[in-house]
Amino acid sequence: MVVCVNAGQGKMIRPGLVLLSGVACGGMTENHIKAAAIFEMMHNATLLHDDVVDEGKSRRGVPTINSVHGNESAVLLGDFLLGRVIQMCVGLDKRVAEIIALSAMRTCEGELRQISQRGNWSLDESEYIEIIAGKTAALFEGACATGAMLAGAGESTVQALAAYGRNTGIAFQITDDLLDLVGEQDKTGKPVGSDLDHNKLTLPLIHFLKTAGETDKQKVKQILLHKTGDAERMELLEKLNSCKSIEYSRRRAKEFVEGAIAALAAVADSDGNKTLVETARFVAGRMV
Amino acid sequence: MVVCVNAGQGKMIRPGLVLLSGVACGGMTENHIKAAAIFEMMHNATLLHDDVVDEGKSRRGVPTINSVHGNESAVLLGDFLLGRVIQMCVGLDKRVAEIIALSAMRTCEGELRQISQRGNWSLDESEYIEIIAGKTAALFEGACATGAMLAGAGESTVQALAAYGRNTGIAFQITDDLLDLVGEQDKTGKPVGSDLDHNKLTLPLIHFLKTAGETDKQKVKQILLHKTGDAERMELLEKLNSCKSIEYSRRRAKEFVEGAIAALAAVADSDGNKTLVETARFVAGRMV
Repeated sequence: MVVCVNAGQGKMIRPGLVLLSGVACGGMTENHIKAAAIFEMMHNATLLHDDVVDEGKSRRGVPTINSVHGNESAVLLGDFLLGRVIQMCVGLDKRVAEIIALSAMRTCEGELRQISQRGNWSLDESEYIEIIAGKTAALFEGACATGAMLAGAGESTVQALAAYGRNTGIAFQITDDLLDLVGEQDKTGKPVGSDLDHNKLTLPLIHFLKTAGETDKQKVKQILLHKTGDAERMELLEKLNSCKSIEYSRRRAKEFVEGAIAALAAVADSDGNKTLVETARFVAGRMV
Repeated sequence: MVVCVNAGQGKMIRPGLVLLSGVACGGMTENHIKAAAIFEMMHNATLLHDDVVDEGKSRRGVPTINSVHGNESAVLLGDFLLGRVIQMCVGLDKRVAEIIALSAMRTCEGELRQISQRGNWSLDESEYIEIIAGKTAALFEGACATGAMLAGAGESTVQALAAYGRNTGIAFQITDDLLDLVGEQDKTGKPVGSDLDHNKLTLPLIHFLKTAGETDKQKVKQILLHKTGDAERMELLEKLNSCKSIEYSRRRAKEFVEGAIAALAAVADSDGNKTLVETARFVAGRMV
């Protein structure tokens, strides 16, 4: 059985964003590579701990560390990675180290906020967006701001790249949440429906609960409350489609992608810039 | 119900060691206070995660975060503290930040090593000492080295304080493990016998399994294997006493205290120095 932190390799989006933001803002340096590794390590620490929190059994198509070696090892391995992040920050520009620290803290804040909202049927879209802006987009935003800063970009360009990262991260998480509802396990490497199992309300459900009639709402709440099988899941998807909630969520993801691309207008046109545009389109295009 | 990370306040030994080491080596600075907070935060992150790992229900006489708010919140709150540690390291002397990072990593390494040895009846004393030198003494050692370094001490003095911290930390953990066997919950704030429940072999048991006759050994292994009640625990303590294993462990703790005090010989005599000597004696005297 193959088991390692990154056995399935993953998409390496966060380190990619550090490097691409560097290229788009004047060129990569040695420190870009160091910062790229830091952001991927923070992400892997998050994944290790998320899998403990969510009792995840598989990720990227392979068994999780917690499922094979237990929660203890997964928690401690995540902590070890964070210790290594502290070490790798030594010698980096103070402003960059500050961004890295804030990215780590905002990620935790977003996750804690999500936990506090679990099972809240009246969660609204703006609160959901703020949650994912923390738990997912904080690392995207930090990665892009770091890449720009290390390339010597001015404050306005750093802010533009941060806005690009934040929008891309939000689009990424909306898409990830959609994949959890309508994706196929073969493609995502994760079991589908796990958000439902953990009473996490994501955008399609938030939209549905706001727009559906009372009878449909009650029906869907019943399905959400009583962990159910494939038949109920299909019924849930039909209900969501009847209110165009899936379509609405796809559109919102695309709007954030456009917001990300618009933020890049402040940056001089370059190959790095073009690849950032493609990256933003890719994150929301994963589900076709 | 009172529940907070440090509701029971705790002994504040690690931040105390940063400050006292500073006083002993030339005087405290603003950065000593910052570093003291960093070491206490790292320790609290460890406690939060330890309680998830060990399914701890109470600590310092109050319910643990995981028992009240769930494992997720406890894991994430620990991660948040580590993020704040990264932030607080910004601007500190590079060598100090490096010590802080290494302390965090060595703590995790020690804990991971302990997990890998769980249920190993032939764990020997040197391996046990190496485990606790990581999981507990790394923060003591780092706190003392940091205090000395921030006071402008030379390399040999920094090393002397590090040795003091390492020995004190080892004595502290041996005593803590003894309290888990022979302590009273009212005094320690933690349930007794939790190491036994988690198949952690500590010094009294290591000594017993090395020195006892085959029949006694088999009897104790049976008690350890089948999680048992008060009667079996009393029988276990009698067996350990019959081989003087508790007495042996107390003696070893005191030897490490003497090692700590001896390391201070390299440091000029001062009030700070005297308090460090008292601190080392205190950690092994908690059980009397």
